[in-house]
Amino acid sequence: NKVTIGLIPADGIGREVIPAARQVLESLPKSDASPQFEFIHLDAGFEHFQKHGVALPDETLARLRGECQGALFGAVSSPSHKVAGYSSPIVALRKHLDLYANVRPVASVAGTNQKQLDMLIIRENTECLYIKQERIETDANGLKVAYADRKISEYASRRAGQMAFNMALMRDKLRANVPASERLWQGSPKVTIVHKSNVLSVTDGLWRETVRGVKESNPELYKSVQMDEQLVDSMVYRMFREPEAFDVVVAPNLYGDIISDGAAALVGSLGLVPSANVGDNFVVGEPVHGSAPDIAGQQKANPIAAIRSAGLLLEHMGYSGDAARIYQAVDAVLREGQIKTPDLGGKSTTQEVTDAVCKRL
Amino acid sequence: NKVTIGLIPADGIGREVIPAARQVLESLPKSDASPQFEFIHLDAGFEHFQKHGVALPDETLARLRGECQGALFGAVSSPSHKVAGYSSPIVALRKHLDLYANVRPVASVAGTNQKQLDMLIIRENTECLYIKQERIETDANGLKVAYADRKISEYASRRAGQMAFNMALMRDKLRANVPASERLWQGSPKVTIVHKSNVLSVTDGLWRETVRGVKESNPELYKSVQMDEQLVDSMVYRMFREPEAFDVVVAPNLYGDIISDGAAALVGSLGLVPSANVGDNFVVGEPVHGSAPDIAGQQKANPIAAIRSAGLLLEHMGYSGDAARIYQAVDAVLREGQIKTPDLGGKSTTQEVTDAVCKRL
Ligand SMILES: CC(C)[C@H](C(=O)O)[C@@H](O)C(=O)O
Ligand SMILES: CC(C)[C@H](C(=O)O)[C@@H](O)C(=O)O
Repeated sequence: NKVTIGLIPADGIGREVIPAARQVLESLPKSDASPQFEFIHLDAGFEHFQKHGVALPDETLARLRGECQGALFGAVSSPSHKVAGYSSPIVALRKHLDLYANVRPVASVAGTNQKQLDMLIIRENTECLYIKQERIETDANGLKVAYADRKISEYASRRAGQMAFNMALMRDKLRANVPASERLWQGSPKVTIVHKSNVLSVTDGLWRETVRGVKESNPELYKSVQMDEQLVDSMVYRMFREPEAFDVVVAPNLYGDIISDGAAALVGSLGLVPSANVGDNFVVGEPVHGSAPDIAGQQKANPIAAIRSAGLLLEHMGYSGDAARIYQAVDAVLREGQIKTPDLGGKSTTQEVTDAVCKRL
Repeated sequence: NKVTIGLIPADGIGREVIPAARQVLESLPKSDASPQFEFIHLDAGFEHFQKHGVALPDETLARLRGECQGALFGAVSSPSHKVAGYSSPIVALRKHLDLYANVRPVASVAGTNQKQLDMLIIRENTECLYIKQERIETDANGLKVAYADRKISEYASRRAGQMAFNMALMRDKLRANVPASERLWQGSPKVTIVHKSNVLSVTDGLWRETVRGVKESNPELYKSVQMDEQLVDSMVYRMFREPEAFDVVVAPNLYGDIISDGAAALVGSLGLVPSANVGDNFVVGEPVHGSAPDIAGQQKANPIAAIRSAGLLLEHMGYSGDAARIYQAVDAVLREGQIKTPDLGGKSTTQEVTDAVCKRL
C-alpha cells in the first residue's frame, strides 16, 4: 500500500512545519497495515504568485489529481493590499478538489492544567461568502458600493451536516476505548448547529433546516445523537464560558473560520490546532494557523498543528491506527511539557519538538 | 432641559432590565446641567408580533421620531423556526432611525481580579448581511439554493470609520483625567480595523480602504491615532490571548456582532456589556445580551448592561457628567463584589443590584 502525499508548504512557516510533518510520517513504525509513503513537493502561495504570477499552478492541481492520494498544505500569506489577479490558493484548492468539509478538532490534553474541552468543528468548506462573487458599483453621489453574494445550498449544507452527524457517531465509538477518567466528553454524542437565522432567515434558515433534516432523514442511525443550536454570536460567547458543553459543532464556512480560531485560543495556541479538508475522494491536511511571516525561517514555529494535520490526513484516508500513534505521541510531548516552542512559553525549536514527537511514536 | 426617553422593553428580561435602567436615570442627583427625564413606554418585540402581527409598530417609530430625544431598547426573542412576516425589530429600528454606529465598550473594572482590558468596539450598524436581501432558488436537481447580499458602501464605512477615530481621540482625552495607575490603556490611541479582505477583496477591501482613508483625509486631526488591522478570525484569537492590545476596534456589522459577544465573555458576563446605537440625530441604548427566556420574570437578570446603556445614551446625548456618575456607581458595586446576580456567581436580584447602583450615584 504505497501512498503518495503532495506536500505544499506555500508561504512563511509553512516551509518549516510541512517538513516537520513529513519527518513524523516517515518515522512511523512500519507495520503491515501502515502505508509506505512517497512525497512530492508542489508549489503554491503568495510568494509563488509574486515570482510567477500564479498562486495555485495548474501543475500542482494536476499532480494532486493524477499522482496523489492526499496532501498537506502549509499556510499562505495575505497581501496587505489588494493585489490584482491574486486569489487565495487554499480557497481555490478546496473548491477545485471539492473538499467540502473542513474538520477541525480542538481538544485540551488530559493531564495538563488547561480548561478542558473536546470539540470537533465541521466547517462547510465550499460556499458561504467564500464563493467570492463580488461586484462594485458607484452610487448617485459618486461613492462606491460593493456587494458580495453569500451562497447556502441544500446540497452543501446536507453534506456538511452528514459529516457532522457521522463524526459524532464515530467519536462516540472511539470514546468507548478511552478510560472514563480521561474522557472529556461524558454524555451521548451531540451536534450543535451554528447559524444566524434570526437575521438571515432565508440562507441560514436553509442551512439550519437542512442540517436538522439530516437527523430526521435517518432517525434510526442518528437516534443517539442529540441536536442543539446556537446563534453564531452566542456560540462564541458560550464557547469561552463553557467549552465543555460542545461535542461536534457544524457551521457555515465563515462562522466556522471564526469559531475555530476562537477555539484555538482556548487550548493555548493556534500552533496546536490541525484541520483536514475532506472530500469524497481526497483529503488535504492543513494547520489552522497562518504563515506568520514575523517568525518565519527562525525555527520558532510550532510544528504540532501540522503534525496533527498529518494525523488527520491518515485518519481520513483510513489509517486510523497510524493516526492514533501520531496523536498520542503529540499528547505525550505536551503532557510532559518540557519541549515546547515559544507560542507555548518554551524555548525549543521546531526541529526539537518534531524530534520529540518522533521519539514517542 | 427636558429630555423624553422612549422605553422599549420588548421581550423576556428586557421587561426587567429596562425598568432598572429607568430607576437609575430617575435617581440621578439633580443639578442644573442634568436633564429632567420624561419616559414613554413603547411596544415592540416578538411577543408583540405574536399578539398583534407586527414586531415594530408604526406608532413606536412615530413617537420615537416625534416625541423622544433618545430611547432604551431591552432585548428581542428569536423565534426558533422561521415565522412568516416576522423580522427583527431592533435591526429595523437601527435602519429606520439611521443609527449607523453601534458603540460597544467592553472594559474590566480596575480593582477586580479580571483579565484587564479596555476596548471600544464600533460596529457598523446599517449594512453588511443585515440588509436582509435574500432569495431562494431551485437548482437543476430540484435542490434549494439560497443567496444573501452583503453590502459594504463607502458612505457607511466612512461614517463608521469616523466614529472610530473620533472616539479614539475622545477616549484619549478622557484618560488624561484617570490616575495613571488605574489607566488600563497606556499607549497613544489606536484604531484596529477588522476585515477579511484576504477572501472578500472587493467588499472588505472597500471597507478597509475607506476606514484607512479617514485617517489619511485628516492627518492633522488624527495624527496621534495609531492604525492597525486584523483579519476577523485572528481578531477573535488575539482578543482572547491579548485583549489588552486593543483600544478602539471598528468592524463591519456581522463581525462586530460576533466580536462583541466574544469580548463580553472576557469580562465575565454578557450581562455587563452595554451598547449605544448612534446616529446623527438619535441614540438608542441597548444591552448586548438577549432576552434570556429561560430566566425571564425571575429577578435573575443582571441589570448592569442596561444601566450602563442608559449611561451611554446620556453620554451620546451630551450629558457626559451624568453618564460618568452612572459608570462610577456601577464600577463601585462591581468592585465591592457583594451584590451580584447569578451570572456573576451571586444571589442578588435584579432589584437589589439596581438599588445598590442607585445608592452609589
Ligand atoms: C487564509 C484564509 C483564506 C483561510 C480561510 O479563511 O479559510 C484561513 O483563515 C483558514 O482558516 O484556513
Ligand atoms: C437580535 C439580533 C438581531 C442582534 C444582532 O445581531 O444585531 C443582537 O445579536 C445584537 O447584537 O444586538
